Amino acid sequence: MIDVIAFDADDTLWENETLYSRIQDQFQELLSPYMEPEQVRRKLYETEMSHLPLLGYGIKAFVLSMITTAIEISGGEISGREIQKILDFGFVMLAHNVRLLDQVEHVLEILAQELPLMLITKGDLLDQEGKLARSGIAHYFQSVEIVSDKTPESYAAILKRSGVPPERFLMVGNSMRSDILPVLELGGKAVYIPHALTWEHEHAPLEPERPGLFQLDHISQLPELVGIIKNGLS
Amino acid sequence: MIDVIAFDADDTLWENETLYSRIQDQFQELLSPYMEPEQVRRKLYETEMSHLPLLGYGIKAFVLSMITTAIEISGGEISGREIQKILDFGFVMLAHNVRLLDQVEHVLEILAQELPLMLITKGDLLDQEGKLARSGIAHYFQSVEIVSDKTPESYAAILKRSGVPPERFLMVGNSMRSDILPVLELGGKAVYIPHALTWEHEHAPLEPERPGLFQLDHISQLPELVGIIKNGLS
Repeated sequence: MIDVIAFDADDTLWENETLYSRIQDQFQELLSPYMEPEQVRRKLYETEMSHLPLLGYGIKAFVLSMITTAIEISGGEISGREIQKILDFGFVMLAHNVRLLDQVEHVLEILAQELPLMLITKGDLLDQEGKLARSGIAHYFQSVEIVSDKTPESYAAILKRSGVPPERFLMVGNSMRSDILPVLELGGKAVYIPHALTWEHEHAPLEPERPGLFQLDHISQLPELVGIIKNGLS
Repeated sequence: MIDVIAFDADDTLWENETLYSRIQDQFQELLSPYMEPEQVRRKLYETEMSHLPLLGYGIKAFVLSMITTAIEISGGEISGREIQKILDFGFVMLAHNVRLLDQVEHVLEILAQELPLMLITKGDLLDQEGKLARSGIAHYFQSVEIVSDKTPESYAAILKRSGVPPERFLMVGNSMRSDILPVLELGGKAVYIPHALTWEHEHAPLEPERPGLFQLDHISQLPELVGIIKNGLS
């Protein structure tokens, strides 16, 4: 029933959004002389969305969006010294430790004995490669795909290259928009494991009755679910 | 003798460094109140080199390096308004037209009838994908690989995944460091086609006697060279 299990990385295998959120708090603090914190957050999100088509995902794009927002909010008055602090936020993020989510390694160890595992993530190429290397779990994955965006087209290209029919592909992730809906659209199966903190952009309406869609509270429940799907009991 | 011909993109198939160079001129002009142009260029290069391990290649990294340099050179005095100009340089670069080098399309058309063609490039994922899409030559390539850096390891991974033995692999590019030396190290063949303007970082000492290394003045000479290599006359 399944040829391969693919995992999203950020906030599925390791913490990510908590780091972005913490840096956003510091960014709001930095801009507090110019604007209310909640408004700063809103402005930043608008800038990120307008930059997305040209800058894509990842820390470098995020830093460039923070700098743009800071200049706009301050009416160009912000100093180079303050912008240096934003650059420093970026370097803190890029060098940050990778913290695996609870029981991730145990689950990968079990599943890697049953099926080939794949990692599919989006964002900065170098940053995602670096996080995977530092995570200590790279050896569980037979292949790693870093894409600029997770769309039905990008999943279809990966499946074609891997020779996996969509109906035998299972994707696991925390983003309804990026990990779940495009895979279901191709006719694949998807396991949605929400994370307490998920970037606003990644939300999408949940359709619980959709065929091929499974939802879990915690990744530790995944091996049992995979067993059920493999035995065709679902 | 050859199973696949792989091409570098920037300054092998289309202009790239001229754009960086033009933006650097504008950057030097912007910082002329603080420092001599030649020194600005030198400072920027140093910043780029120190950022490389964390930021990698590409326009976003370049913009972040320009901002860092501007803050440093101005002793933090540069204003948000001036930094906005640097951000704007980046958006000009990201939206820039792709200008194919002379006779590139003609050469690809000939070679694609003889062998599978591959594109191997480094830099920002999204930016390289966008340039390829805008170039109008994407359909000549059976596969496209965008890597964070071009090292013997990254080429070896591509060859393994494609099932191509190194000795049957031919790489074409303008960077001795990125396109030629790592491929020769693996036992592959490489065609070096220097570009008038090549980023300092991509230079490396030429060893003309190295087995598997060919040098051409112009890409238009490539079909003839490929014919010779295929017939084993070299």
